Amino acid sequence: MLKRPLVVRESDLSLLVDLYELAMAQAYWSEGMDDTAVFSLFFRELPDNRNFILACGQQNVVRVIESLAFTDEHIKRLESLNRFQSGFLDWLRGFRFSGSVHAVAEGTPLFPQEPLLEVEGPVAEVQLLESLVMNYVHLESVLASKAVRLTFAAGDRPVVDFGMRRTHGVDAAHRSVRAYRLAGLAGTSNVLAGLDFNMPVYGTMAHSFVQACPDELDAFRAYARLYPGTTLLVDTYDTRTAVRRIIQWLKEEPEVRIGGIRLDSGDLAAEAVDCRNMLDEAGFTDIKIMASGGLNEHKIAKLLSAAAPIDGFGVGTAIGVSNDEPALELAFKMTEYADLPRMKNSPGKQSFPGRKQIYRRLGTDGCITQDVVAGRDEVFDGDPLLKPVMKHGQVPEDAIPTLDDQVRAAEQMIATLPQRFRSLEPLGENPVVISEFLRALQKDTLAKVGGG
Amino acid sequence: MLKRPLVVRESDLSLLVDLYELAMAQAYWSEGMDDTAVFSLFFRELPDNRNFILACGQQNVVRVIESLAFTDEHIKRLESLNRFQSGFLDWLRGFRFSGSVHAVAEGTPLFPQEPLLEVEGPVAEVQLLESLVMNYVHLESVLASKAVRLTFAAGDRPVVDFGMRRTHGVDAAHRSVRAYRLAGLAGTSNVLAGLDFNMPVYGTMAHSFVQACPDELDAFRAYARLYPGTTLLVDTYDTRTAVRRIIQWLKEEPEVRIGGIRLDSGDLAAEAVDCRNMLDEAGFTDIKIMASGGLNEHKIAKLLSAAAPIDGFGVGTAIGVSNDEPALELAFKMTEYADLPRMKNSPGKQSFPGRKQIYRRLGTDGCITQDVVAGRDEVFDGDPLLKPVMKHGQVPEDAIPTLDDQVRAAEQMIATLPQRFRSLEPLGENPVVISEFLRALQKDTLAKVGGG
Repeated sequence: MLKRPLVVRESDLSLLVDLYELAMAQAYWSEGMDDTAVFSLFFRELPDNRNFILACGQQNVVRVIESLAFTDEHIKRLESLNRFQSGFLDWLRGFRFSGSVHAVAEGTPLFPQEPLLEVEGPVAEVQLLESLVMNYVHLESVLASKAVRLTFAAGDRPVVDFGMRRTHGVDAAHRSVRAYRLAGLAGTSNVLAGLDFNMPVYGTMAHSFVQACPDELDAFRAYARLYPGTTLLVDTYDTRTAVRRIIQWLKEEPEVRIGGIRLDSGDLAAEAVDCRNMLDEAGFTDIKIMASGGLNEHKIAKLLSAAAPIDGFGVGTAIGVSNDEPALELAFKMTEYADLPRMKNSPGKQSFPGRKQIYRRLGTDGCITQDVVAGRDEVFDGDPLLKPVMKHGQVPEDAIPTLDDQVRAAEQMIATLPQRFRSLEPLGENPVVISEFLRALQKDTLAKVGGG
Repeated sequence: MLKRPLVVRESDLSLLVDLYELAMAQAYWSEGMDDTAVFSLFFRELPDNRNFILACGQQNVVRVIESLAFTDEHIKRLESLNRFQSGFLDWLRGFRFSGSVHAVAEGTPLFPQEPLLEVEGPVAEVQLLESLVMNYVHLESVLASKAVRLTFAAGDRPVVDFGMRRTHGVDAAHRSVRAYRLAGLAGTSNVLAGLDFNMPVYGTMAHSFVQACPDELDAFRAYARLYPGTTLLVDTYDTRTAVRRIIQWLKEEPEVRIGGIRLDSGDLAAEAVDCRNMLDEAGFTDIKIMASGGLNEHKIAKLLSAAAPIDGFGVGTAIGVSNDEPALELAFKMTEYADLPRMKNSPGKQSFPGRKQIYRRLGTDGCITQDVVAGRDEVFDGDPLLKPVMKHGQVPEDAIPTLDDQVRAAEQMIATLPQRFRSLEPLGENPVVISEFLRALQKDTLAKVGGG
């Protein structure tokens, strides 16, 4: 068996390209095409079950872009494909991205046709970024767009990420937590990601610990000794029996401190009501009830609308893979080359050519009233959302806020969503207006390329 | 901004745990519980749209298990959580997994209640593996279980992976290709993964190259010069116009060799018929037609049942995230501790205790007739599917075949699926029988833990 790395190394990210990018780069090189191109990352339509996308990853991906380089080992591996000329491989050897990136802030709610980012630079250089940039931004935007719905459903109750076991691989296990912080989740069970992304880490026991102990109460006693104020998992055998025994034990040993119980199966609403009643009647009103087990935003909304006395939620699969909408049809499209607007005319896949800006207008209530997608040099009322985060291949000092600042800014931006956009049901509305200039440019460009 | 690694480093995988695993490990350590535990990785039910799961990753995850260790830096980071005692941190410092793993072969079709793998070892050691093992195996099994359906739909036409831009992060972008090889896909667009996993790499051009050139035909000419026999993307502006111009050009320059055209939008069946007719009438019967653009197994089956003259398919989103079933409810459950069978009794989540073996019986046609899930020490007719892949923390020489051998074995195992299990529609049937011994053991164990 080949001894390959168990995970993708940072130094190998430059080879994580689709072959056509290298083929096109060589063709640009071979044809002497080295003018500036502009590529835009956007989506044409919202997924059916989303009223907006919480764009995440588009600022931090420039750290990845900055790091890309081809080593001698990479060049040797590419030679083995028998498709590349030595002159082009030399060009790759000298490759460092020299272009610029504009991006919206991390955690910006976006709508169709609004660029998450725009890259400009020598065409072959930008072309090489396509799949990696899409992959990087797609992950965090998809997961954050799901996670923020959980916070809408849960209101002021904390939602904690339990999704690591379901996320697709270890990069997703890690960066999901960054997306969840931006989306407003309260914590994670994931130790590495919690430490790396400065998010509170939670977790006490699985059923296995209870199963391994001679008796369920032995397990609870051990935890109370080691972790005063812990949360006990009560559904390993029978929830109500477990809670009854906990109450009896706590009455006998009043010095023991238990912070909460966790329900992980069964009829959560009915069990929460019964457990709350049992605890309250025994005077343990401060013991909280946490719920987990196949939860999603709809189930949480239903539990809370039934007034289930649940104080917090752990969510796994639903946010770990964004199971109702695991993909976003992000496109990374050339919109300008050699100072001329460019577009394709494939059925259902038309785009707007040219460099762009988004102007976001807020009403007197602080909520979004309209987004104008305009040419980069147009000026409209409203806040311009696309800001430079990379110039000449470098990230300017202070161009990218700290994650803590990004999280605060995201919270403010999420707060600008009108109430109806927070609905868990599809709204079928979006506040985007395309500027007259862009519409005219599309029409002109279409006429020139022979379509329309 | 903190300078953290852009991707998870191999050396940090040991910290990629859910906090409760560390909390339980400390509790086992603190309580002096160090007997042997057995944990089983299995699923209770098939996803609605799957007739089997193609189990992948369960052998190779032992390479990950083998690598796990806690560095001084890890220990320092764990100390910062203020939950761990110095004696336990010392135990972690000395941690190397010392247990054993049984697993089914890579690419084995499995059904509910059949273990993908079983781990045994000192309880705290096995507990620490839970989320990482689940994450690792889940990714490849989910993606392979989707990809194999594409091969069923496409029959003898090749299916090529275009999914990198949609896979959830870079680990998924990489290991997806390993899963696709095991599932029988013909190639990938992904350079790094194709090289690492020895899969043919394909790709020619995107719309951007056509857009950047002064004229579509300039783009095609450049590619024909650089890449004789290339596949031309023909839908940037108007497919039929593009094909008409290609035919005229090839008639004028008979020395030019074009291998195929690719359709990426529109009514693929109608366009394929028209393009095929145009090419055939002009005598270019050897130019192949490839199709891509939002394809999945159902669309491919429909195209082929309509006799669309398409010679191969590129598939992205559908396989990249397994969009109809992006998750599998894998469970990693304790089934034995200190030589006693263990199980939980949560509603809808009962499991079978004890170490297990799967005996697969094939009919005279070579197809699966029955799987018996039995106790490890029971003997039944049929092939035992669970084999040792790790003993005392080491992978025995030759315990894990090369990927090429795994792919060949997977092909043979997929061939043992009865025809009805290859249906794209839910079958609602599974060939699993639980042995009398296991049923009795479940009943006994249930009685002892106070349930049933």
